[in-house]
Amino acid sequence: MPIKTEIITIGDEILQGQIVDSNSAWIAQQLLLLNIAVVHIATVADREDAIIDAFEQAKQRADIILVTGGLGPTKDDITKRTAANYFGTNLVRDELVLEHVRGIFAQRKRAMPAINQMQADVFQNGEVLFNELGTAPGLWYTHEDKSFVFMPGVPYEMKHIMSQHVLPKLASVADQGHIVNIYILTAGIGESHLAESIQDIEADMPDYIRIAYLPKLGMVRLRLTGVSNDAEALRAEMQVFANNIKARTNEYFVTFGDVDLEGAILPLMHSKNYTLATAESCTGGTIASRITAIPGAGHVFKGSVVSYTNEIKQKMLSVSKHDLEMYGAVSEQVVSAMATGALKSFDVDFALATSGFAGPDGGTKDTPVGTIWIALATKTTVITRLFHFQNDRNINIERTSTQCFLLLWQELRNLGC
Amino acid sequence: MPIKTEIITIGDEILQGQIVDSNSAWIAQQLLLLNIAVVHIATVADREDAIIDAFEQAKQRADIILVTGGLGPTKDDITKRTAANYFGTNLVRDELVLEHVRGIFAQRKRAMPAINQMQADVFQNGEVLFNELGTAPGLWYTHEDKSFVFMPGVPYEMKHIMSQHVLPKLASVADQGHIVNIYILTAGIGESHLAESIQDIEADMPDYIRIAYLPKLGMVRLRLTGVSNDAEALRAEMQVFANNIKARTNEYFVTFGDVDLEGAILPLMHSKNYTLATAESCTGGTIASRITAIPGAGHVFKGSVVSYTNEIKQKMLSVSKHDLEMYGAVSEQVVSAMATGALKSFDVDFALATSGFAGPDGGTKDTPVGTIWIALATKTTVITRLFHFQNDRNINIERTSTQCFLLLWQELRNLGC
Repeated sequence: MPIKTEIITIGDEILQGQIVDSNSAWIAQQLLLLNIAVVHIATVADREDAIIDAFEQAKQRADIILVTGGLGPTKDDITKRTAANYFGTNLVRDELVLEHVRGIFAQRKRAMPAINQMQADVFQNGEVLFNELGTAPGLWYTHEDKSFVFMPGVPYEMKHIMSQHVLPKLASVADQGHIVNIYILTAGIGESHLAESIQDIEADMPDYIRIAYLPKLGMVRLRLTGVSNDAEALRAEMQVFANNIKARTNEYFVTFGDVDLEGAILPLMHSKNYTLATAESCTGGTIASRITAIPGAGHVFKGSVVSYTNEIKQKMLSVSKHDLEMYGAVSEQVVSAMATGALKSFDVDFALATSGFAGPDGGTKDTPVGTIWIALATKTTVITRLFHFQNDRNINIERTSTQCFLLLWQELRNLGC
Repeated sequence: MPIKTEIITIGDEILQGQIVDSNSAWIAQQLLLLNIAVVHIATVADREDAIIDAFEQAKQRADIILVTGGLGPTKDDITKRTAANYFGTNLVRDELVLEHVRGIFAQRKRAMPAINQMQADVFQNGEVLFNELGTAPGLWYTHEDKSFVFMPGVPYEMKHIMSQHVLPKLASVADQGHIVNIYILTAGIGESHLAESIQDIEADMPDYIRIAYLPKLGMVRLRLTGVSNDAEALRAEMQVFANNIKARTNEYFVTFGDVDLEGAILPLMHSKNYTLATAESCTGGTIASRITAIPGAGHVFKGSVVSYTNEIKQKMLSVSKHDLEMYGAVSEQVVSAMATGALKSFDVDFALATSGFAGPDGGTKDTPVGTIWIALATKTTVITRLFHFQNDRNINIERTSTQCFLLLWQELRNLGC
């Protein structure tokens, strides 16, 4: 029987929308690599009855229940004592953990508050998952043949305990056959059109290969997933379908792989020794930060000028005063000049530029909020695009950035990459 | 009886960690403003049995069940027909919606795929929540005295339907007393120390005022929450506690309000007519993008140079070749020169600079990955800080950015802001 897991996140701050639960996605990704399914994710309040109900329901669905949150030293963190009551066990102080917690405070040259002693309390007859990075240890407790694993909600501490302790234990019990995923990144085609165009390929797939559509602003990723004891044969079979989809989607196909556009662009540019820079007005550095989030970005990316004033556009990007006065900062002329200015200043092969009103303020009668120009300069040409977005500031910024990557991608394709 | 809501997110892509569920946090925030509690959030698979179980359990906990996802036109989207079976109703084609879906394709000058016709199928005897921004309408259906609300998973479409249709309906039925929240942003003090230092203030609070600790890299936000029919009296009572916390936390207190450090810094700088620029190496534009994510950033922020090469550091930030060769790009000398260079180039009052090895590549024996220098230049001084981070690339970048904001904040405080 395949192992089933459930993730329970405890915390009012998530139910009140203060925090986005990114832990669950990370945990699910790691488990997927071991071919362990997450069958349910639940978020519940810092309240005893809610926590106990969640434990009860999770036991019906899953074999292993991964619980994050509520292990802090403050009063609103009640996970540990609620669980101890539910399991019918006691909390006992662990001297090794206490020593470690004291050591952390000593290292930071701070006195340890008395309430932190409680962080060394662990389940009697449970297992301690040592937390080298923080004061709240992970805990593993088996209750009525179900395993409950408790971890702090702080993402990097949770990730550390998962990687060091939980995943190795799970890997040793998981014997789940092999899971094979093939990702196909497309850009510039909507989900429905994509689905329609590959309808027959999808219909031909056997039951044990599933397809998922993962749309994101301007991109759709497809994921083919199969499970088999013969991973190699399965992968070969799946790759045939993937190749058919690649052929069918043609100019919308970007790459095989679980990456975003920028993650596909950078290695391609690197392989051609192409270099890149950006000149960003309305995107305010978001394009640069998406590029530099990728390890090894420095092989391709030389830098960016974020120009939030006309003076900076003139000084650092050589945009002419005439163009700024005649056409305004949000115009085809200025965004083109920004791109060619960046091309020269950074001495690169490709430069992207953005200028627009991301909102909610700004804009004029002729150029309302949501009007955004982008440009791509190469050594031989400048290509521009105009968009009228109608969303909030941050979505407009994100969409504009993606459109820049799409424009760059298309141009790289045109150049035969 | 206060209205209780539950959020159900349907989609394998979330259980497999492909997507972080940010919709739930947004929905919860909006409901909080109406003082409507979210008692549970569940994520379930695109599978009929899982969806039906989730509906059953949600009915036990909540009066209104908000469901997102699985309304797309593709085969993996089964929410609508599963729900129709569960409710014992039929799906009927809605001509108005069909017209609208056709119109969207016409506007984009594309033919409508046949599968999109199904997006006009709605529950017989249900209510249609018109989706002006997309092809999947929202749906409202009352089943055994519980309201089920279905919305697409695409965030901006969901937000639109919530804002235009769902929240107004909920506001008219919610008569929940008033909720009062007071937020207190602290920076530079850990959660435990903070908790210990305000222990007695917390103990003095009545039961109807709750405190939550919301830690984030380098910051802890506190939220006091109370509910009463007399909001004004409650707010006054809560503000006394908040002021006591402010006095107690002293130099760690940043501001009252539900903001991040950068959200506190910008209006403060604006009120003094201070200007800001950044020179970013390892943070790659992240500081600039966090600043420009805030509406009105342009009043304070003039721009950034993202300098990913030594040549750009020399050319745009006037870092000397000598310093780069003698001390290396990741050094106190170079980060100081970057900050003063940005101060001059952008002609601003404050300039932040970063230089470090964010990882996983790079670094030297003396300057390993995780070594990060930051600097703040003002017209009279340059302040530097050195960090040794041990996390992954993106966390190192995020932490470095926050430390820059903290340094700037502390300097603004020293200057009497």
